[in-house]
Amino acid sequence: MTNLSDAGVSGAVDDSHLAEKKLSSDEILVGNFLQIRRDTVSLPDCRHTTREYVVHPGAVMIVALLDDGQVVLERQYRYPLHAVMIEFPAGKLDAGESSFECARRELREETGYTAREWAKAGVLHPAIAYSTEFIDIWFARGLTPGEQQLDSGEFLEVFSATPEELMKWCASGWVTDAKTLTGMLWLSNMLSGAWTLEWQTA
Amino acid sequence: MTNLSDAGVSGAVDDSHLAEKKLSSDEILVGNFLQIRRDTVSLPDCRHTTREYVVHPGAVMIVALLDDGQVVLERQYRYPLHAVMIEFPAGKLDAGESSFECARRELREETGYTAREWAKAGVLHPAIAYSTEFIDIWFARGLTPGEQQLDSGEFLEVFSATPEELMKWCASGWVTDAKTLTGMLWLSNMLSGAWTLEWQTA
Repeated sequence: MTNLSDAGVSGAVDDSHLAEKKLSSDEILVGNFLQIRRDTVSLPDCRHTTREYVVHPGAVMIVALLDDGQVVLERQYRYPLHAVMIEFPAGKLDAGESSFECARRELREETGYTAREWAKAGVLHPAIAYSTEFIDIWFARGLTPGEQQLDSGEFLEVFSATPEELMKWCASGWVTDAKTLTGMLWLSNMLSGAWTLEWQTA
Repeated sequence: MTNLSDAGVSGAVDDSHLAEKKLSSDEILVGNFLQIRRDTVSLPDCRHTTREYVVHPGAVMIVALLDDGQVVLERQYRYPLHAVMIEFPAGKLDAGESSFECARRELREETGYTAREWAKAGVLHPAIAYSTEFIDIWFARGLTPGEQQLDSGEFLEVFSATPEELMKWCASGWVTDAKTLTGMLWLSNMLSGAWTLEWQTA
């Protein structure tokens, strides 16, 4: 068992015994929504296998803090799970759009809010075995309400809760969305002062 | 904006304005690894659209606590991201296998450890827009080391770190895997005493 702590966060670690190399790549599905590729790869022991994965443009999530300390949340029907899920606002990058532009657009379109200050917290990868998706985690504060501008065919409900309520719902199993649970890790560490954010004016 | 806190965790909430109904379902890809379906659905406004998603058998993740307070971690190359990721041990359910059986098997096969006590913490859904995958979150303690039994073509490195080290790597952006970040939310709340677990003997 290796102890990595000596290597530090910069991670000067030799990964040649783990890495896989692309030999060829094919688009095997272009759906209405999903694009799937299958690559042939060389494993660390030089044998060949295939890797199949969703090609995703990337996304953002916004932890938006109201002046009264509550956070902005959504309830949305998620078809693959046949359930309404509680989530932080989120959405996919449009072609050519920056992560920050996307965060401002998605917050405004889905919830109506615009924010005076923004901070990029980090990034998460939801399904590392079979998707290229990343989700940039943004915090927003100094919120001004406005009108939702939902896409055609988009149905969601906006509400708010205190961080304590949301944390209780995470513990009880009412909130199970991985990006929202990850947002809660950031929110609780930010509120306790353990993790800090660099705020910028929009 | 609805305030859901009155509804409570049991959630006696009317979702008819959000729910989508399945009209038909087709398998549109049966890959070596990925299975994709496309369903035609009726939206809340009665218009029709399609939903495409990965059909997944479900998985488990194990937060395994060593007697010295460290946790068992893995480094594994994740092809869709072309990077070695730091993760809690995890794996997919075999056909007919229970979540608990899978957790014991995956911990033993991937890390060599067997555990005297287990606790089911919760569940997370990694990619709610396009996958049926759930990941049951298990905690294990009273660990005894043994021999790894990796599958053919499986390459991973087992190591250990303190919860404080792992939390630092989450804050710095070295750990970005959503299941591992969610495990960290559970671990930190468990260690602080805010969230409790019901332990059972294996």
